Amino acid sequence: MGSPSNYLNSLIKEFSRLPGIGPKSAARLAFHILKTSVDEVERLTKAINELKKNISFCNICGGISDGHICGICSDDSRDKGIICVVEEAKDLLTIEKSMEYRGLYHVLKGVISPLDGIGPDDLNIGSFINRCSNGAIKEILIATNPTIEGDATTLYLARILKPLGIKVMRIAHGLPAGSNLEFADSATIAKSLAGRIEIL
Amino acid sequence: MGSPSNYLNSLIKEFSRLPGIGPKSAARLAFHILKTSVDEVERLTKAINELKKNISFCNICGGISDGHICGICSDDSRDKGIICVVEEAKDLLTIEKSMEYRGLYHVLKGVISPLDGIGPDDLNIGSFINRCSNGAIKEILIATNPTIEGDATTLYLARILKPLGIKVMRIAHGLPAGSNLEFADSATIAKSLAGRIEIL
Repeated sequence: MGSPSNYLNSLIKEFSRLPGIGPKSAARLAFHILKTSVDEVERLTKAINELKKNISFCNICGGISDGHICGICSDDSRDKGIICVVEEAKDLLTIEKSMEYRGLYHVLKGVISPLDGIGPDDLNIGSFINRCSNGAIKEILIATNPTIEGDATTLYLARILKPLGIKVMRIAHGLPAGSNLEFADSATIAKSLAGRIEIL
Repeated sequence: MGSPSNYLNSLIKEFSRLPGIGPKSAARLAFHILKTSVDEVERLTKAINELKKNISFCNICGGISDGHICGICSDDSRDKGIICVVEEAKDLLTIEKSMEYRGLYHVLKGVISPLDGIGPDDLNIGSFINRCSNGAIKEILIATNPTIEGDATTLYLARILKPLGIKVMRIAHGLPAGSNLEFADSATIAKSLAGRIEIL
């Protein structure tokens, strides 16, 4: 296969390394970069470099942050009595997008997974227990993924938190909104049956 | 919706501007950049900047090129007697990927489209006629898209080239490989009927 430009080949190769970008999408992106104004391309590369250079982790929740304390932990309008526990920093963004939660977060940076050799000590749990011990926290909402590892982590946290007298909740697992019973898998149906709630 | 980091927001916004990248993919890419090593991220931004800075158009075929003449036009192993005409530079790459063509190319940089006010003079046709007039070209293979504008452009080129005594061909339009008659649209069926060829 001949190639008219090595610069184009290099960029297509680099784009292909990104997650979810196959060779066709990579070529499409590279041609988009070719057509786009220099200003716009500079904005993109600047945003990449600035993120890489300036981002750090929040000293409180362990999520990503521009400084020592992230925008959510330092936001006075948030409910400081409830902490939502998530596996990864990106899960935090997903929950924020629903606009249904106004409390704080804690990012575990993983889940307990004995098969991968990951125990509680490898996660961001120590600082979480400290946060929960200050008496201001009324409720913990665990939002790990509905997987075996996520459920194990949930149980582990619940057992630690119970002696502290804090209400420990977890988000509901069941049928996703807009879905169809016909296409749901048995595990989801089982979870939605076990988690049934009274209507009135 | 709260946000832990403005740098992250900026990069997600910039990624969302790229074609085929929605907000979810943009967030996924931004988190990938966060996790990736500085070296790898530098390779990506360098590839973007170098493409933008160094690329130009080939003086012969009008496709993209690292210098005045592109890698295909300057490749002595290619068949210099046949020119494949494509609409855009990216179509050239698509045809190269099939590894079935070893001739030269010419990039029109568009198609004749009276509705959009694009006539033959707005396209890279003048230099194409010059290329065809030197006597070395035995065959022209037109590979515009199978659209009304693509077909109109094909007809226009065929009428100009015929007096030069050059064989003018076009690529076959019909059922795509691996497809199914059941799901093909009527226009494709009609084209594949009209373009039937003898088997033996």
